[in-house]
Amino acid sequence: MAKDKISIAVIRRLPRYYRHLDELLQSGVTRMSSRQLAQRMGITASQIRQDLNCFGGFGQQGYGYNVEYLKNEIAAILGVNKLYKAIILGVGNIGRALINNFSFEKRGFQLLAAFDVTEDVVGTEIGGVPVFHIDGLEAYIKENKPDVGVLTLPRSAAPEVASRLVNSGIHGLWNFTNIDLHLDNDSVKVENVHFSDSLMTLCYRLGEDGK
Amino acid sequence: MAKDKISIAVIRRLPRYYRHLDELLQSGVTRMSSRQLAQRMGITASQIRQDLNCFGGFGQQGYGYNVEYLKNEIAAILGVNKLYKAIILGVGNIGRALINNFSFEKRGFQLLAAFDVTEDVVGTEIGGVPVFHIDGLEAYIKENKPDVGVLTLPRSAAPEVASRLVNSGIHGLWNFTNIDLHLDNDSVKVENVHFSDSLMTLCYRLGEDGK
Repeated sequence: MAKDKISIAVIRRLPRYYRHLDELLQSGVTRMSSRQLAQRMGITASQIRQDLNCFGGFGQQGYGYNVEYLKNEIAAILGVNKLYKAIILGVGNIGRALINNFSFEKRGFQLLAAFDVTEDVVGTEIGGVPVFHIDGLEAYIKENKPDVGVLTLPRSAAPEVASRLVNSGIHGLWNFTNIDLHLDNDSVKVENVHFSDSLMTLCYRLGEDGK
Repeated sequence: MAKDKISIAVIRRLPRYYRHLDELLQSGVTRMSSRQLAQRMGITASQIRQDLNCFGGFGQQGYGYNVEYLKNEIAAILGVNKLYKAIILGVGNIGRALINNFSFEKRGFQLLAAFDVTEDVVGTEIGGVPVFHIDGLEAYIKENKPDVGVLTLPRSAAPEVASRLVNSGIHGLWNFTNIDLHLDNDSVKVENVHFSDSLMTLCYRLGEDGK
């Protein structure tokens, strides 16, 4: 499997396949044609065949895909089974929403701990996750070697904390702070969830029909 | 300005330009070359020139961009000045985070009201936004004619509420529920914020270096 030849556009579609296959499996569907899957996902069947061919296929002509097998293969490609270790920085509303309602394990991550500065929450647990003071960040990373930091802290604090994480050896950031981080270390992978970019795109699209 | 010829890829980059220009303006920068802007944004200067040429330019050769003018032009293209009306469905952690910490007005939307089913919150205000019971949704839409519904409710409730919104005349959805909505009305614009797709992409990218 020639990972380095797959375009980022294809990679970004894989979680979506995974999500639909997972939903199908949970509703008891075990086999599905590319045509049916395409209809469900709102894309073309040829797009699906083309995407999955990047990884060697998985379907038999005229027989469709085995849903569980395909889901497991995509999980393996994405690396979900590796269970990377994550910590979360900031337990405001977004941080709490992720801790309480988002299944990290299903997406390949084990959430070890949370960090904050507020006296009310430091020393407590949220959804089973211990909350530590940010002062202990470097010592914690040294001992527990998390792979990823989830940035759900105020944007004013983001650059400094991001830089502390990277200097301590974190190699991935999941960034909810709505700012683009400028890191010294190019090898750190950053995924941004930019709410404002998404809402402004919606704003544009609402105007497309001349409203 | 031939709006319908602009690709969605370019459109999706515009909010990012807007965000950087806004930050620059706030830190007192009034003029910037495409090379400087490119460096800041981590893209190439030719990409910037190409993107902005889709809308007729805005820069003078050798003289750079007027930051405020460019920001205002992009705002106009995106339609931020139209101030569409929005309502939010569900005031759990994500809903509250958006109400309290996210500036809707800056992104072209006026947040009118929130809806929920929980007795504790119905009848209260959160960050100045009144919370109503979902039973009154249709009557409220008829009277106030919001353009957009923000879906921050549990995923199990999402399809039904989305369908009620669309049937009442809402023409845009900002969807945080992590499911793809299947709507009867194709003209409704949907922007999804899929946390899980983003995190799984990060998972893949962490593995690219062979870790």
